[in-house]
Amino acid sequence: MENGGGGRGEEIKWRFEGENEKITTAGKITIRGILDILMSSLDSNDVRPKIPLGHGDPSAFPSFRTSHDAEDAIVDAVRSANFNSYSPTVGLLPARRCIAEYLSRDLPYELSPDDVFLTIGCTQAVEIALTVLARPGANILLPRPGFPYYEARASFNDLEYRHFDLLPDQGWEVDLDAVEALADENTVAMVIINPGNPCGNVFSYQHLKKVAETARRLGILVISDEVYAHLTFGSNPFVPMGVFGSIVPVLTLGSISKRWIVPGWRLGWIVMSDPNGVLKKTKVVSSCFSMVVKVDAV
Amino acid sequence: MENGGGGRGEEIKWRFEGENEKITTAGKITIRGILDILMSSLDSNDVRPKIPLGHGDPSAFPSFRTSHDAEDAIVDAVRSANFNSYSPTVGLLPARRCIAEYLSRDLPYELSPDDVFLTIGCTQAVEIALTVLARPGANILLPRPGFPYYEARASFNDLEYRHFDLLPDQGWEVDLDAVEALADENTVAMVIINPGNPCGNVFSYQHLKKVAETARRLGILVISDEVYAHLTFGSNPFVPMGVFGSIVPVLTLGSISKRWIVPGWRLGWIVMSDPNGVLKKTKVVSSCFSMVVKVDAV
Repeated sequence: MENGGGGRGEEIKWRFEGENEKITTAGKITIRGILDILMSSLDSNDVRPKIPLGHGDPSAFPSFRTSHDAEDAIVDAVRSANFNSYSPTVGLLPARRCIAEYLSRDLPYELSPDDVFLTIGCTQAVEIALTVLARPGANILLPRPGFPYYEARASFNDLEYRHFDLLPDQGWEVDLDAVEALADENTVAMVIINPGNPCGNVFSYQHLKKVAETARRLGILVISDEVYAHLTFGSNPFVPMGVFGSIVPVLTLGSISKRWIVPGWRLGWIVMSDPNGVLKKTKVVSSCFSMVVKVDAV
Repeated sequence: MENGGGGRGEEIKWRFEGENEKITTAGKITIRGILDILMSSLDSNDVRPKIPLGHGDPSAFPSFRTSHDAEDAIVDAVRSANFNSYSPTVGLLPARRCIAEYLSRDLPYELSPDDVFLTIGCTQAVEIALTVLARPGANILLPRPGFPYYEARASFNDLEYRHFDLLPDQGWEVDLDAVEALADENTVAMVIINPGNPCGNVFSYQHLKKVAETARRLGILVISDEVYAHLTFGSNPFVPMGVFGSIVPVLTLGSISKRWIVPGWRLGWIVMSDPNGVLKKTKVVSSCFSMVVKVDAV
């Protein structure tokens, strides 16, 4: 399969020409993808300043600075030279233990460090969850409005997604009738984002319990994206979905990005909020473990 | 599609049961996967100490410590609070500029910061390169012996891989006849690892030139894994594959892990060593850009 003599002057047929279509399709769905379209439509001759209305990162402003305790922890770790090595890809045990203890405060059961996988921000947590659940023919239920990275990753992984609405006149609660109507025998999970992105609502204890009962009836997992945990507006206190982990197994996704105002530090987690061990029995845990330990890192 | 009443006592049919087979298959190929098989075959009653013969990480030993300059750079960055935000997903411009300047020292042309994408160690560089090149029916040529993460990622991405031998009695040079025999119209790239992993050989200028000419004749990209750049044994000096970027476009993969003894810091790169702009014209660059900016991060 040769290109003639390979001389410098001639036209070469490069066999790697073209784009991977899955990437192109997924790339069009994300916030960055849409922002690119918007920005490229701006009139570059118009010198008026643009006001960005979609700030997601307060750390860019000097008035929002993380605590010195957080900075000291990084500085001490670097100066100790004890953390320059490859770490276990599930995450360092002390970090996993801290996260387990911290999240257990709000739960009716104790998480173990083995329930916790550290990830590169919540972004990688979404990536792993959706990769592990992608099987031929499977589908996942996503909230509308939601966070478009879920759609992008599902599309990239050939995982069909179906939208249920959040109901504006019910405080952006999940339309549970729609969830029941959308689910079929190939539905593997539903995603909730609590506190909500982009609506900022906080689901009540009672509503989360109904979500759990619905998911249990359907036999599907709940992925609960709690990156904004405890950052609440309004009167509903934040309740982690893991509270209902004995009704339905929950993958809790989170990170330190928002609460500690350090999104650039890229520290997130996937937690198996599953006191009955359903995720272990159904091999979701071993698949997460393989993905994190064997495929995503060496 | 309901599980009856969803009462607590009954047996639930969980629809997410089972593993993603792509992950399971890929996980069995990696070094960690094989190490798991080995370790689980050990006799746990045998108290004799085990001697690990496969250390890849000197930073675990106190005699190998990175320079204070490197530590100071991290500490200063943390104390400045200027780097807590989401960074551009292609990487911060000053870092990309440094890498472009550093690598250009050994090249007959100047790299621009726009030729550089920062990655989470070289691991993510491999992931991105192999994802971008995976299209239906495509195949890639990999060295044997080599670094099994390439096989794992190719398998995960449904990218067929074919092995060419490294020739032990020719200093582990690439069997270029085998490369020519293996390639067909669906071959998109070949991978070389230089300095070699696991053999430790260093390819000569002349041999790398022949690799470039062969790849050009076949119309395929060269992915050059140079994580061990400048860490050489024997008499051959290290020559980057990018020297031959005007013969054939090269994706140069690297990281600071080995030379600075900080693999845990996870700082790697993909560089377009391609002075003729073939990768831009053939859309490999835009696909890398979409992958990094839009699919892998938000």
